Order: sequence, then structure tokens, then C-alpha cells
Amino acid sequence: MDGKHLWSYDGQIFPTIGLNAVAGKPPEEWGMDPVRYEDMIPGCYDPVARIADMDVDGVQSALCFPSFPGFGGGTFFRAQDKELALLCVKAWNDFYIDEWCATAPDRYIPLAILPVWDIDETVAEAERVAAKGARTVSFPDSPVPLGLPSFHSDHWDPLWQVCSEAQMPVSLHFGSGSYVPGFSFSSMKPVPGEMTMPDAPFAVAITLFSTNLMWTTVDLLFSGKLQKFPNLQISLAEGGIGWVPYILERSDYVWERHRYYQPIDFDTRPSDLFKKHFWGCFIDDEHGLKNRHEIGIDRITLEIDFPHSDSNWPNSRKRAAEVLAEVPDDECSLIVEENARRMLNFPRVTTGERVLSGV
Amino acid sequence: MDGKHLWSYDGQIFPTIGLNAVAGKPPEEWGMDPVRYEDMIPGCYDPVARIADMDVDGVQSALCFPSFPGFGGGTFFRAQDKELALLCVKAWNDFYIDEWCATAPDRYIPLAILPVWDIDETVAEAERVAAKGARTVSFPDSPVPLGLPSFHSDHWDPLWQVCSEAQMPVSLHFGSGSYVPGFSFSSMKPVPGEMTMPDAPFAVAITLFSTNLMWTTVDLLFSGKLQKFPNLQISLAEGGIGWVPYILERSDYVWERHRYYQPIDFDTRPSDLFKKHFWGCFIDDEHGLKNRHEIGIDRITLEIDFPHSDSNWPNSRKRAAEVLAEVPDDECSLIVEENARRMLNFPRVTTGERVLSGV
Repeated sequence: MDGKHLWSYDGQIFPTIGLNAVAGKPPEEWGMDPVRYEDMIPGCYDPVARIADMDVDGVQSALCFPSFPGFGGGTFFRAQDKELALLCVKAWNDFYIDEWCATAPDRYIPLAILPVWDIDETVAEAERVAAKGARTVSFPDSPVPLGLPSFHSDHWDPLWQVCSEAQMPVSLHFGSGSYVPGFSFSSMKPVPGEMTMPDAPFAVAITLFSTNLMWTTVDLLFSGKLQKFPNLQISLAEGGIGWVPYILERSDYVWERHRYYQPIDFDTRPSDLFKKHFWGCFIDDEHGLKNRHEIGIDRITLEIDFPHSDSNWPNSRKRAAEVLAEVPDDECSLIVEENARRMLNFPRVTTGERVLSGV
Repeated sequence: MDGKHLWSYDGQIFPTIGLNAVAGKPPEEWGMDPVRYEDMIPGCYDPVARIADMDVDGVQSALCFPSFPGFGGGTFFRAQDKELALLCVKAWNDFYIDEWCATAPDRYIPLAILPVWDIDETVAEAERVAAKGARTVSFPDSPVPLGLPSFHSDHWDPLWQVCSEAQMPVSLHFGSGSYVPGFSFSSMKPVPGEMTMPDAPFAVAITLFSTNLMWTTVDLLFSGKLQKFPNLQISLAEGGIGWVPYILERSDYVWERHRYYQPIDFDTRPSDLFKKHFWGCFIDDEHGLKNRHEIGIDRITLEIDFPHSDSNWPNSRKRAAEVLAEVPDDECSLIVEENARRMLNFPRVTTGERVLSGV
């Protein structure tokens, strides 16, 4: 359409947002406008080309989130035709696990999205992808803005049960709950369907997206679900880590003072719950690394964001070496590799020793 | 009503929320339920009794925000009868400056609220209270959830002009924009007037209120208003400081990479703008103090929160000594006194030397 490549699905047109495929372009050329596939480097869409891009970048393994379907499958959640949407969820999971990851099973880490509008189908799909080798499921960072039950509801318990049993951490990617910080008010105020564009530059939202995961974290810490599902693991995707010490100190402070008249009188401090159940990741977070021991040295992982606009590609390894310059080698090993392998149950392949089930 | 003291205003009943008057009670007795005046210590409502409470607590001066009117005057903003509301704004300002502060003009710092629904009346009231000695005006931390123009609009420029000329910093108190993090969605979803109570415990909102001020800060840093009004000063009230280094690093990162296609291509880094225009405060923020030089040692002030539930009263001075134990004395002096006096243009009184105008 007008020389651009677009997706057509469920009666709607979805542009390919330029910012999501900027790898290889200087920031002076970035923009929100839709692009054509030939405007991107092939690693944006071709799993073989991407391995070459990862090699250039010094990246061994990658966990890839969907773009057009939404980080947590929100495009299918919002679709009118729910029969088609369910087929699309399964098709994307099959594509990503059976085709994309299969091109390099020791380098692509299987992830799946879920039909979150139907808890029975969600549980069934989580069980199906676990059997196929999925290492994590991507779930909305907050279900509330989508109109779904909150983390405080028992609605999701069967999913947490499956994830606990299958040792699949739940990946909560900022923005997958469709709340855009600083913007959603402007678009929610008028009557539904009548969209008002906010007057803030998009930089405000890009800066604040991590506040989504602050909400997610505090919501889960005070939900009681981590006591009910002691093996449930939560991966906070693309939210940075520099805010974690403040939020944990604040959570403990509130828990100490306000637990007597609320259903949060747990026997564990929120900061201890965090260190047992949560994993954070960072791209370029000097403050977070400086304070890494307040976060938990065994709960921090490195994010690459390729081919999106936060990525340092093709200099991810170089940039990681800079931000980790003051960090001892054993801690670096945890942060750049071992923590992620442990969280995702994705051990290093030693020739002839390991076969990934289903891929 | 039912044995409780309540406010009746503009056809509505406003409870006196118990959490707002807990000073002197152990946390085991706190709650949200309305209370009677005789259930509070007199320092909650009597300016003479409060000075005695401040003495016990080791506090020389206090900047007091309104309770029933809302931190930023939101009760009057929401009222139907705008003629009465304007009178109430002026009456509250006269009460606080002429009566409350006048009981101890060297210890109570004059603050005013504004009739923000009308920019002409807002400017007129800001000029009126400045002439009476107001040292700061309390403005909504974000005007957007109130349905008012955002910080990016020129609508507020006349107010920023008055505040710049009168050397009155703008105090932005979390929650004054009426957005409750993690909760507002639940109450916005149904048709207007049909309130849905969220199922999250209120501890989630208490923990996350500082995210309001993260939005405020980033919104203002990317608004261009700080370049347009180089003397405008912003006080972030009750938001803590531990999140500031992360948000500034993230703001700089986004500014570095995303300024070429957005109206944020300023010649100053966001973190440098912050250190020139913003002031933060903390109650009990060990992470923030540990990282105080990333925030700006001359931009941090101490908050007491008396008689609300975050207060350490009557141990504020003791607790301050604990959290400041590792901080050199000259930095402590800035943090516990000198920064606030400089920000609020409220110098220490030396006998016979200083008369506060209008109070």
C-alpha cells in the first residue's frame, strides 16, 4: 500500500513499524514510518541470516519475541475472529519452534504465545508447547489493561501450575499488556473508537516503558501467587534493572508498615520473594550493574534487542564489555550466559551429549 | 455520620481517611476507615500543637500540603460549582498562609493551591499568593488524567512565567494528578459512574505512587519548557529519590538515540536538565542516598510526611541519622536543611534580621 509492506489480518491493516527494524541504520535515519522488507537487513526476518548477524554481534543464543503478533500475542487477543486467532497463535508457535528455532536448535531458544482470552485453551496450548520444547511462555505484563483478570485473581492459577510443572518461566515483556505509560490516558479518554493522539513525543513512552514492569513486579509480589506456586519463575523482558533496588526497598517498606490491614501479611519480605522468583535483563544499564548485588547477581541477564532500536548491534559484545568492565569475571559469566541458561533450562550444547526435544 | 467525622462539600461526602492521620499509632492499628478528630493527635489539625510535635521529632520547618482539598487542590477541581470552588481555593490559601503559617512564620513554609480549571484565574491566584509570601504552588503531578492540557501544551506557559519571575518552585505531589498506579484502569474500564474496585491490595498503589513522578519528570524533561523557562524550578513531592539515577540514565539513552525524528533535539542532556531544574525528597530511601551523587547532592531534600503513614514521627531525626550515617556532614547539612531553604527561598531566621513578607 503506497509502496509500503503491511500486514492485513482480521479486517485490519498493520504497518511494519520502522523502529522495529533499524539494525544497521544510524539513529539519524530512524523513524516510526512503515518500511518495506527490502529496507531491512535480512536478519530481521530470515533465521539463517540472523545467525550470521548474531555471530557478528558476538551473541551465542537468542530468545526472540514476536513483532506483528505483539510481544505477548496481543494482536490475536484483540482480533474479532477468535477461531482464526486461536489457529494463528498455534501457527506462530509452530513456526517459531519448528521452523525458526529448528534452523539452529542450539542457538534459538523456543518461546510460545498463548490464547489468553480463553483459560482452557491457554492451559492446553501451554501444555502442547511445553511438550514441543518451549522454554518459556510470553504472557501480558499486566492483563488488566486488556480487560483480563488481574494477577490477584485465581483465574490464571491453572496456567501457573503448568508453568511450574514444566519449569517454564513466564516472560512478561513490557508493553505486552498494551498499556503505554504517559499515553494511554489520552487514548482512553474519548468515547471508544475515537482515538486522540497524545501531544507528548514518543520518547516519553520509550523512556517509561519499564514502569510497566514495576507495576507487574509489585502486583505479583503482593499477589500471594508466589507463595501458592513456589516454583513459578518470572522473567521481566526489556525492562532494565536499574529501578529494581528502589522498587524492592519501597516494597519492603510498605510491607513492613501496611501489612496489618491488608491481605499481604506474608512471612517473606518482598525483596526476598523477588530474588527467588524474578529475573531481570538489561541492555546498557550502568546504574543497575553498579548496584547488581542489591538485585541479585544470579538473577540478571543480558538483553540484545536486535533488530529493534535499543540494540547496540553489531557492537553488543563490545558494549557489554564496556558496561561490565568493573564486574569480576565470575559475575560476568553469570550475567552474560549462565543465568539465562539456568532460567530457560537451555544448557550449553556439548557435542553428542544433548538433544533438544521436539526441535 | 455513623459516628465518624466527614466533610460535606458540593453535594458529596468526603471521609477523613484513617491512613492520613496515623501519627502516634502503631502500624498494627492502621486502616483506611474514616476516623473522628478526637482519634487523631491534635498536631494533625492544630498548628500550635503541631509545632510541639515537630519539636519532639527534631523538625525545624515544614511545608504542609492540604489533605481534604487534595495535594494539588483536586477536590475543588472536580467540584460542580466552580464559583464556590474558586472561593474555596482562595480561602484555603488564605487560611494556610494567614492563619496556619502565621502561628510560626519561621517554621511553616507558605504553599498555595491553584484553580487549575481556569488558566486566567490560576495566573491571578499565583500572583496573589506570591505577593502574600507563598514560597511554592502545588500543581497536579500530571494534568492529563484530570482532562487538562499536558505539560507539552503552551496552555500553562503564563503560569510557568509567574512562577519563574516570583522564584516560586512548582511542587508536584504524587497522586495530585489523580492517577493511582495499578488501579486507575480498573476504575476507568466500565461506563462512567460505574465504579469497579480493583482486586489488588492498596499496598500495590502505595508502593508505586512514585511512578507518577517518573512520568512527570520524563514528560517535563522532553517538553521543551525547561529551555523556554530557564528559571523554572520543579519540586517532586513524596516520590522518593532512589529511582532517579535509573530514569535519568534511561532518559539520556533515549535522547541520544531517538532525538532525530522527534521534537526533543535539545542541546542539553536530560540528566543535566534534571540537575538544573528538579528537586527530589526522600523519607527512608537508602538506595537513593547511596547513589546521591548521581542525583545531585544539592537537589535532595528530606521529607517527614507527618502525620501520614510514611512518617517516622516521633523518630524522624533518629531515622534520618541512621540513613545518613555514611554521608559526610557537609552533605548532610545540604540534604536536611540547606537545599530546602534554597529551593523554597526560606532562609534561616536570625533574630531581628528577617521578616517574612505577608505572614
